[in-house]
Amino acid sequence: MPNIDLKLDNLDKLFPKKFTPQQVASAKTEFLKELSFAMHKFYGGKMMSIPKAPVYGFNWFNLWYTPGVSKISTQIRKDNRNSFTLTNRANNVLVLSDSTRVLGDGDCTPPGGLGVMEGKAFLLKYLGGVDASAICVDSKDKTGKNNPEKIIDFVKMCAPSYGAVNLEDISQPNCYRVLDELRQTCQIPVWHDDAQGTACVTLAGLINALHLAGKNIKKIKLVMLGAGASNTTIARLIIKAGANPKNIIIFDSKGALHKKRKDIQKDKRFYPKWDLCKITNTKCVEHIESAVEGADVLIALSRPGPDVVKPGWIKLMADKPIVFACANPVPEIYPYAAKKAGAFIVATGRGDFANQINNTIGFPGILKGTLLVGAKKITDEMAISASYAIAQTARQRGIKPNNIVPLMTEWKVFANTAKAVGLTAIKQGLAQKKLSGSAIYKKAYDDIKLARKTFHLLMDKGIIKKPPVKLIKQVLSKVINKIK
Amino acid sequence: MPNIDLKLDNLDKLFPKKFTPQQVASAKTEFLKELSFAMHKFYGGKMMSIPKAPVYGFNWFNLWYTPGVSKISTQIRKDNRNSFTLTNRANNVLVLSDSTRVLGDGDCTPPGGLGVMEGKAFLLKYLGGVDASAICVDSKDKTGKNNPEKIIDFVKMCAPSYGAVNLEDISQPNCYRVLDELRQTCQIPVWHDDAQGTACVTLAGLINALHLAGKNIKKIKLVMLGAGASNTTIARLIIKAGANPKNIIIFDSKGALHKKRKDIQKDKRFYPKWDLCKITNTKCVEHIESAVEGADVLIALSRPGPDVVKPGWIKLMADKPIVFACANPVPEIYPYAAKKAGAFIVATGRGDFANQINNTIGFPGILKGTLLVGAKKITDEMAISASYAIAQTARQRGIKPNNIVPLMTEWKVFANTAKAVGLTAIKQGLAQKKLSGSAIYKKAYDDIKLARKTFHLLMDKGIIKKPPVKLIKQVLSKVINKIK
Repeated sequence: MPNIDLKLDNLDKLFPKKFTPQQVASAKTEFLKELSFAMHKFYGGKMMSIPKAPVYGFNWFNLWYTPGVSKISTQIRKDNRNSFTLTNRANNVLVLSDSTRVLGDGDCTPPGGLGVMEGKAFLLKYLGGVDASAICVDSKDKTGKNNPEKIIDFVKMCAPSYGAVNLEDISQPNCYRVLDELRQTCQIPVWHDDAQGTACVTLAGLINALHLAGKNIKKIKLVMLGAGASNTTIARLIIKAGANPKNIIIFDSKGALHKKRKDIQKDKRFYPKWDLCKITNTKCVEHIESAVEGADVLIALSRPGPDVVKPGWIKLMADKPIVFACANPVPEIYPYAAKKAGAFIVATGRGDFANQINNTIGFPGILKGTLLVGAKKITDEMAISASYAIAQTARQRGIKPNNIVPLMTEWKVFANTAKAVGLTAIKQGLAQKKLSGSAIYKKAYDDIKLARKTFHLLMDKGIIKKPPVKLIKQVLSKVINKIK
Repeated sequence: MPNIDLKLDNLDKLFPKKFTPQQVASAKTEFLKELSFAMHKFYGGKMMSIPKAPVYGFNWFNLWYTPGVSKISTQIRKDNRNSFTLTNRANNVLVLSDSTRVLGDGDCTPPGGLGVMEGKAFLLKYLGGVDASAICVDSKDKTGKNNPEKIIDFVKMCAPSYGAVNLEDISQPNCYRVLDELRQTCQIPVWHDDAQGTACVTLAGLINALHLAGKNIKKIKLVMLGAGASNTTIARLIIKAGANPKNIIIFDSKGALHKKRKDIQKDKRFYPKWDLCKITNTKCVEHIESAVEGADVLIALSRPGPDVVKPGWIKLMADKPIVFACANPVPEIYPYAAKKAGAFIVATGRGDFANQINNTIGFPGILKGTLLVGAKKITDEMAISASYAIAQTARQRGIKPNNIVPLMTEWKVFANTAKAVGLTAIKQGLAQKKLSGSAIYKKAYDDIKLARKTFHLLMDKGIIKKPPVKLIKQVLSKVINKIK
């Protein structure tokens, strides 16, 4: 019987010594998936609603509901802005997906994304002190096609109930249309975490990786694998942060992006890709081997690996290669394999490897800061200021090649990020509330601390009960036997 | 300075002795509204989200989110029913309104109903152990008209995320169309609390009132004031429960309902009213005074009073008149006035008067029971079984004219109701899970107890902080000065 406790620490050590690194990596993934299944079933999901206001006697119901609540309805009717002070709206985020591209698993049917969206709501509360509703919608129209207009209409209809919208796991190209339309017309900020969120955290990691490698973002040669919503936004943000687009080469599934890619030019729905075709890879390099030769950085967000990024490519890169292999749930190349091929720094999207480039480190603080100042949108400048806040938080406690970004347990990063984002919004004239940096930091810090305190109280007092360790051991044994 | 503490008990005693009963009633309403405003502002609304599953170490995030959660997405894709066991869906209710008829306040603009919907979510959790998302939507189409098809489409889109839908405060006639379409096509139960909910609790009150008056439902003469969604459904339910439709006379704002009302017949959108025109008031009585003469029961759900129901009408009624004056926020006649006119039993929609006929006593248990057995709809038979469970709960501890229905503090009523509703669903072949009555009762009871324990823990530990009593006193002084 393997030795494991509720902390689930040291997963690497749980598996038989004769397992190869590849087997350990697979076993870990498999174990996390199987245990995830067992725990979700045990708890019946992971988020709930609960009052945040008290009842000391029967008459309190007459305040929170009829007849007293009538005053709330009429005050909001008088000025809709009152909904931000008299209800939970100002701290409530809609986490929305149509489940058509759920992490690395593709279209999972409408309810298929619920586990991920509830997970997002979990992280938003625990890390950012932000409340959320997790909703997966069926975006198919009468012809049976996933129609972006349906998502747009849905969000517009319920926007009056929320402080912000977090879009998630909507497939291309619908995600572009949805985001663009909503960002233009919604009265509340709309965040697309797969795009801006991932880009923001990737940039944070890149800033620190370049620092360790002694390289300057303005001079780097960058190769990107994958031209989905994430990677195209990463490219846009890295360019806005100083990189020279001429030194960037991006590949999609059909080859390198450049101005001769008429297939991309033709399909207007993929305009962010075409925007990059026009300014990157000016020499029209076609082959990945030529592209990676002498490259400083390789950022892959393409398809689940392993073996999507070849060790041979890394060997062709410049000194101190920086490799971000961020496909979920399995990176394009496992970190041990990339390191073996000479990578100086390897990052993945996975929390069970070093250097997790996961939007989890970004969105809670970004949304918190945005909500606190009542910003009406979240600009690239706000996202870039978040990247620097994240990078700075890690640097303050020291970084090294296997530790370039804060872990989500280093939770002050979220208050730092909220402050940076809030201040940038104010500077850009987008904020409705003009708070000082320290006021934003303090409110974010207090709210996050309260959320954590609440959560740990529920665990300590047995409201959230402990799962049987036996169940965890059973899952582990099953996985070991399967891999063996 | 008036003497008041956090319990807010004995509101009647807070006001100057020289106040007339009418002044005390107004002052109480005003105080509850003003204090509601102050408290909503102090707490920034009243509902939040929080995890219900634990984190004992970093790897737990890899279970609740990527990479482990991938197994949840793929398992739900394989069989959508897994969404009921692997996410919070099975216990999560969408509380939805378009804010076009918010309690007694009419159209409050889209965010205007948020206070009420959050209140509903509050009650659902505290009383029924059910989680909820409160959403108010903008149902206006491009022409600027509130369009029921938009609400229908909205609910159909997000139904895969919820266990049930609670519709609320949607104006007539849109509410009929929305409910009918959704009840036919949705794969989850759709409850219209203004209609079925109010009807269920009104019937519960009526059952006990008739018991005290020594009258038989099959023989009563009933007059109803108002022919909105609530009253038409109340009539339907009372008839299904045994009342003779020929002895019922219903009034809308234009007069009595009967088969000669061509205006109602013509407007197909109001078909529930026409259904009643065909079977009630067969003698085509036109005047309210003639109708109430000798009536046993008057049920008013018309427009905010006072003075909508005249004392003179009550004087014309039969022995032991039963008067339900349930408009919000102010009843059609104040209880003291109705009693003075001879009413034997008076009920209102208000929690600060005796005999609150409020759906609050019904929906938490009804939805809990429905969710626990996985019923696909909520039939009138299920609602009527809830009425009897509610009436029975009150009778077990004794009823009297000023105490005919359980208070919401008598919280076993919700477990009793859940059991009755669940068993009826099973009997009607509508349940996906066939549980025993005691199993439904136990699960409902345990969930409600856990919700209450959680809530009180948050209060006891200061997560939900106490409001300053000074603030409450200020509000009270202000109200007294205003009424004076």
